[in-house]
Amino acid sequence: MKFVIVLYDANEHAKDEPKLYGCTENALGIKDELEKQGHEVIVTSDKEGENSEFEKNLPDADIVITTPFHPAYLTSKRIDKAKKLKLIIVAGVGSDHIDLDYINKNKLKISVLEVTGSNVVSVAEHVIMTMLVLVRNFVPAHEQAINGEWDVAAIAKDAYDIEGKTIATIGAGRIGYRVLQRLVAFNPKELLYYDYNPLPAEAEKAVGARRVLDLKDLVSQADIVTVNCPLHAGTQGMINKELLKHFKKGAWLVNTARGRICVAEDVAEAVKNGQLRGYGGDVWYPQPAPKDHPWRSFRNKYGAGNAMVPHYSGTVLDAQIRYAEGTRNIIHSFLSGKLDYRPQDVILLDGEYQTKSYGKH
Amino acid sequence: MKFVIVLYDANEHAKDEPKLYGCTENALGIKDELEKQGHEVIVTSDKEGENSEFEKNLPDADIVITTPFHPAYLTSKRIDKAKKLKLIIVAGVGSDHIDLDYINKNKLKISVLEVTGSNVVSVAEHVIMTMLVLVRNFVPAHEQAINGEWDVAAIAKDAYDIEGKTIATIGAGRIGYRVLQRLVAFNPKELLYYDYNPLPAEAEKAVGARRVLDLKDLVSQADIVTVNCPLHAGTQGMINKELLKHFKKGAWLVNTARGRICVAEDVAEAVKNGQLRGYGGDVWYPQPAPKDHPWRSFRNKYGAGNAMVPHYSGTVLDAQIRYAEGTRNIIHSFLSGKLDYRPQDVILLDGEYQTKSYGKH
Repeated sequence: MKFVIVLYDANEHAKDEPKLYGCTENALGIKDELEKQGHEVIVTSDKEGENSEFEKNLPDADIVITTPFHPAYLTSKRIDKAKKLKLIIVAGVGSDHIDLDYINKNKLKISVLEVTGSNVVSVAEHVIMTMLVLVRNFVPAHEQAINGEWDVAAIAKDAYDIEGKTIATIGAGRIGYRVLQRLVAFNPKELLYYDYNPLPAEAEKAVGARRVLDLKDLVSQADIVTVNCPLHAGTQGMINKELLKHFKKGAWLVNTARGRICVAEDVAEAVKNGQLRGYGGDVWYPQPAPKDHPWRSFRNKYGAGNAMVPHYSGTVLDAQIRYAEGTRNIIHSFLSGKLDYRPQDVILLDGEYQTKSYGKH
Repeated sequence: MKFVIVLYDANEHAKDEPKLYGCTENALGIKDELEKQGHEVIVTSDKEGENSEFEKNLPDADIVITTPFHPAYLTSKRIDKAKKLKLIIVAGVGSDHIDLDYINKNKLKISVLEVTGSNVVSVAEHVIMTMLVLVRNFVPAHEQAINGEWDVAAIAKDAYDIEGKTIATIGAGRIGYRVLQRLVAFNPKELLYYDYNPLPAEAEKAVGARRVLDLKDLVSQADIVTVNCPLHAGTQGMINKELLKHFKKGAWLVNTARGRICVAEDVAEAVKNGQLRGYGGDVWYPQPAPKDHPWRSFRNKYGAGNAMVPHYSGTVLDAQIRYAEGTRNIIHSFLSGKLDYRPQDVILLDGEYQTKSYGKH
């Protein structure tokens, strides 16, 4: 079997930290084992364009492993090139960089699996952190501290508590629900959610959340909105100039789901003109984000309101241990012929959708 | 009556945000009312040295109002000058900038009151934010985002989840307990606390926390330590080179209590040499902190691990509304002669300690 594994380069950082499994140097801790078994293993970070290592190795690849952090985009054109491809594993969660519908519609015998749950806690924590950083105005405060300044009023005039705020999640699945769970003890005024599926009554009651059926209605009630839904045709560009008009003036927006769920320029403009007080998260399009991506430079009228970071919330060391192990389990299951995958990991099985969250529903 | 009120200057920020009550310009929303009643009201930010407005106005001051954010230090020498002083109000929480023992021992008929509870939620939220910022390595990640960089491995190698960590609070009072409450849903491995008072059994059970009687024993078990106790003779310099040796190597330390509970150089050195992975909080000594304060410049070996901000966690806008109102209530209670203070606000009543948390116990 030929494995093509696309990960980010860690260079000197790989030596610094041996638990950094998700980099090309450490290759999810599986390269040696696979090579001893006689498999061919290509590990690369070079993923853009026809002459990339990734694309050059696609025609005879049996298995492709990618991550959401340094996504190797599997477009229809690339899938057509990969005539031998049987299995795509996402070491992490989120398969929107793969043209799932193309595989499905053309009845290609390709399975797509994620390591579901490997990052849900990490992302939920990142959401809470980003809310606190924005609402409590951490960034300009920290800049003062390290720059030798002290102007409490300049910070305080744009700083609030989370307590007493109405907080809404778009998507109440594995991550969104964990965000709600972590917010309860902060005593929000109300927790709201929007999801095509209602939460089970008991789960809804446990966090005291109220479902809102209309997205405009949801965002118009919230001081803080967080996006926790997958990217697909129905959510791409969902947060745009039009929807932003329905937000409460001066609300905060957190997105750790996928960059393309927001129209980048519209969100940046909303912070600049005060419709949003701030925006933060770790997802962009494309990734790595270009130097001139509008989310690097937007600020609100006080020079604050930007809590962006590169895409890493699901690749902290604790998560790397989980998704490296999950990836190895999927490989073992595939190579053994048992195909005894964890059901929740399977997005496409021989081209057929196995979950309601993706594709048409 | 003569009021001397020491607050921070907000300059243009006071115009930007009318809810910024805690600045000299807005004077807790009480100046006009007091002047109409015929009282003299001095409002100043000038608090250091014999020629400061504060010290010049002390000899005939009846009431002094100060805050922990821009503390007017009331030393024994200054108290001696204030022959007419009857009431000191802390607009906020924390009276360690006042020599309480001196007032007490010399049987001076001075009362000291705080607005207890006005900032507990704000500080507890700041503690959780600082833990997340340190453990998840937010600062260098955000710097990459705004500087046009993208190096996920450099961030990930020093980033973790809070889940599964052992977290210890030194002090489980109004703030420390709220920190524990907010941490439960993050699924820590264990929550520990150190306090001269055990929590009521029910409160202990509600957060699943275990009391540890020995401070060295406590810090040796924790991945994250947070300081939530008052500053007094027994806690000043408590976190020093000697105690830091007992911390788990690479632990994180958060202090939003008071700067002098830590020996500043020892903590900075511990981050530099790797004994601590990071340190953060919003309290310093003195305040405003000088440009060369060691907490502005320390970094760990990866250039991270600093989550310092100026002292503002308890002066976000939601808290200002609470402590401005609490201060007005104390003034009304004093001026009416009823002295019907909220018992929890009273630190010294005519020089006598009213609470177990301060002085000898």
